[in-house]
Amino acid sequence: MSTTDTSSTGRRGSDAWSRTHFSVDRRSPGYCRVTFDHPPINTITATTVAELAELVGLIEQDPDLNVVVFDSANPDFYLAHYDTEHDPARTAALGVGPTGMHAWLDLLVRLSRARVVSIAAIRGRARAAGSEFVLACDLRFASRENTVLGHFEVGTGVVPGGGPMARLARLVGRGRALEILLVADDLDGPRAEQYGYVNRLIADDRLDDEVDAIASRLARFDHHAIARTKSYVDQVTLPADTEFPPALSDFFEMLGRPRQQEQFARLEALGLNTDSDLERSLGARVIESIPDA
Amino acid sequence: MSTTDTSSTGRRGSDAWSRTHFSVDRRSPGYCRVTFDHPPINTITATTVAELAELVGLIEQDPDLNVVVFDSANPDFYLAHYDTEHDPARTAALGVGPTGMHAWLDLLVRLSRARVVSIAAIRGRARAAGSEFVLACDLRFASRENTVLGHFEVGTGVVPGGGPMARLARLVGRGRALEILLVADDLDGPRAEQYGYVNRLIADDRLDDEVDAIASRLARFDHHAIARTKSYVDQVTLPADTEFPPALSDFFEMLGRPRQQEQFARLEALGLNTDSDLERSLGARVIESIPDA
Amino acid sequence: MSTTDTSSTGRRGSDAWSRTHFSVDRRSPGYCRVTFDHPPINTITATTVAELAELVGLIEQDPDLNVVVFDSANPDFYLAHYDTEHDPARTAALGVGPTGMHAWLDLLVRLSRARVVSIAAIRGRARAAGSEFVLACDLRFASRENTVLGHFEVGTGVVPGGGPMARLARLVGRGRALEILLVADDLDGPRAEQYGYVNRLIADDRLDDEVDAIASRLARFDHHAIARTKSYVDQVTLPADTEFPPALSDFFEMLGRPRQQEQFARLEALGLNTDSDLERSLGARVIESIPDA
Repeated sequence: MSTTDTSSTGRRGSDAWSRTHFSVDRRSPGYCRVTFDHPPINTITATTVAELAELVGLIEQDPDLNVVVFDSANPDFYLAHYDTEHDPARTAALGVGPTGMHAWLDLLVRLSRARVVSIAAIRGRARAAGSEFVLACDLRFASRENTVLGHFEVGTGVVPGGGPMARLARLVGRGRALEILLVADDLDGPRAEQYGYVNRLIADDRLDDEVDAIASRLARFDHHAIARTKSYVDQVTLPADTEFPPALSDFFEMLGRPRQQEQFARLEALGLNTDSDLERSLGARVIESIPDA
Repeated sequence: MSTTDTSSTGRRGSDAWSRTHFSVDRRSPGYCRVTFDHPPINTITATTVAELAELVGLIEQDPDLNVVVFDSANPDFYLAHYDTEHDPARTAALGVGPTGMHAWLDLLVRLSRARVVSIAAIRGRARAAGSEFVLACDLRFASRENTVLGHFEVGTGVVPGGGPMARLARLVGRGRALEILLVADDLDGPRAEQYGYVNRLIADDRLDDEVDAIASRLARFDHHAIARTKSYVDQVTLPADTEFPPALSDFFEMLGRPRQQEQFARLEALGLNTDSDLERSLGARVIESIPDA
Repeated sequence: MSTTDTSSTGRRGSDAWSRTHFSVDRRSPGYCRVTFDHPPINTITATTVAELAELVGLIEQDPDLNVVVFDSANPDFYLAHYDTEHDPARTAALGVGPTGMHAWLDLLVRLSRARVVSIAAIRGRARAAGSEFVLACDLRFASRENTVLGHFEVGTGVVPGGGPMARLARLVGRGRALEILLVADDLDGPRAEQYGYVNRLIADDRLDDEVDAIASRLARFDHHAIARTKSYVDQVTLPADTEFPPALSDFFEMLGRPRQQEQFARLEALGLNTDSDLERSLGARVIESIPDA
């Protein structure tokens, strides 16, 4: 299966939906597959956010679409985490989306409420904003052998900004959410499944096919039955919009403190945002960014 | 252990509580066992609903009763699902119960609030309304080798009507609830246990005895301690009454659409409501009811 | 590792925080370890409550502290349960704490909201009030081979008084919470982990070191990042204060009934509050306190 295939079996070419940080394969009118492809490690940048926001807009307006699968062209990194590219102004300039929230929160909230089933097919690392993205998807299937999830933010002295306190706490319960967020270490696939962070694990060499089978099934179902059933679950499980902005504010404010800037500079010196050993073991190694007391 | 034994060790004969779709064995003043027995596959019909509504009324008024176990005389089917018997008017004619809700919702809500512990001892298939029944019970113990749970409704183009969006989402979390309801496939025992859909699995040849031991223990406990402790858990975990009726309305409305009538006609032609291969693999085979695009 | 070591690596001697029912080892400015040591079985008495209330006050006021680990000097009993010492007036005389709630509820609520991470490192038995204590901690790590958790209260004819209906129901879901509270039997480590009652199990011979590694990591993190992230999780997961007092009232009232006094007298004759076989198997043997019908 080629993730860069631009031919489409649907009524619309994939080209129309592909962007620089992901390609889109419209496999049928009801089903499209989005493949993150932003070398070297699929960081999320202001560009990714802008492109995902556009994609969510297209998803919302498509009356035929039942299911969107998000996977990665890089088997080691699903979505590494956010990278400001030394230019926080670009992130600030993203502005707010239709919900009135910052573009990142806005696209996550809209994806979680869209009248389609969003599926994260997770292979590799998804930390911080990468984890926030998969938490905003409806279903999470993960490679048994090759999954790393986590929130290292507290280790860098900031609060996670994109909503994991709201989403994880409801998904895995208070104790496990506090562990994930405060201890701020990586979880492998088996622990993520045990905690309920993902729906379930699938053997790595079966992951693509099994998720494809699930998506192909969903693509044939009645659009309204999916949308209305999901909306009833939304009513019981989605956080109120008002829960999200305060933590993002805190994140930006805390990130601007000199001590946190120094921690990030140290992480960059160690290989942050590159395909480095640091990035492969970021949960354990984030502690290296903290100056000795 | 005979499930058709009509002698009782309690103060009241079982005959008084037995009906055509289930028998009741009052094992002690504090403990009765209800055995579904509606051949060939324990479908739930308007008759079952009316009889269960009466039973719940008796349960509510019995000051001695601490625990009710619901099991099945058919090892392959616990409660298959609802069957309108080609006469939706009979279901409509059931009217509303004391809560003001449709008889089916009413009896489930009243069972979940009753001052007794209700236990589903699950062996065989419990899908759609069958799953809604076990979700309304307080405890769910299931055969390790022989359990099938699921909601195939979305595969037939309708929303589940009896409350699983409200109950499952709170029990297993958003991601797993969306998977169960939208992918609409069967879950076997191990997955049901992993997701928290059931309390836990018990080896099939131990299920009856272990549940009997639990019920016998509960039968000796103080009635008020059980009732009051349960009521505190109810306050934190039960959906508001107002959550249920809209989805049932949607269910009836969507079921009446020509396309859905055709899907059900196709399923009937394939063996729905009979002891057929279709019924044994309904989660996988529901897709056969969908006309090719 | 000595739990009675009174030297401290922090800025303050451990002596200042140690009390008669527990010792405190301030391992660093950010990290202290509290070891329950109230022979023979770590029952919780009015003295324990008063001492823990003082400790929580010190924790709240310490600007350097990030993490408190609670473990036990007795490998068989973490915290057995409450013991009124035949003098309920002493418990009543504890009065209310700063939240306006009874001292026991007050200290649990304040611990759960404190700006530090509280960790229960569980080895041995923690039942009833002992379980209530670990449920009020933020994280629960338990010995794989040597953990017993449970609420036997309903077996003695009373409702659990210290909040498990509120906390357990949110942590493990309705079905499993009802089973734990109403069936009132012991859970071993594997079942506690499966149900989400604890975060996860750790091999007994690794428990102290692994929890120490987690706490040492947390001790180096930014205090405000921990406190603020926790406060966001608190908003989503902590019960309202108003949920707690009614159940404690019920507990006191039901405990005073002659039948319950007889049950407790019977349990005492069988070895309650001593290092007895009864205490080791209290979940199973609580039924012996019930007179034959």
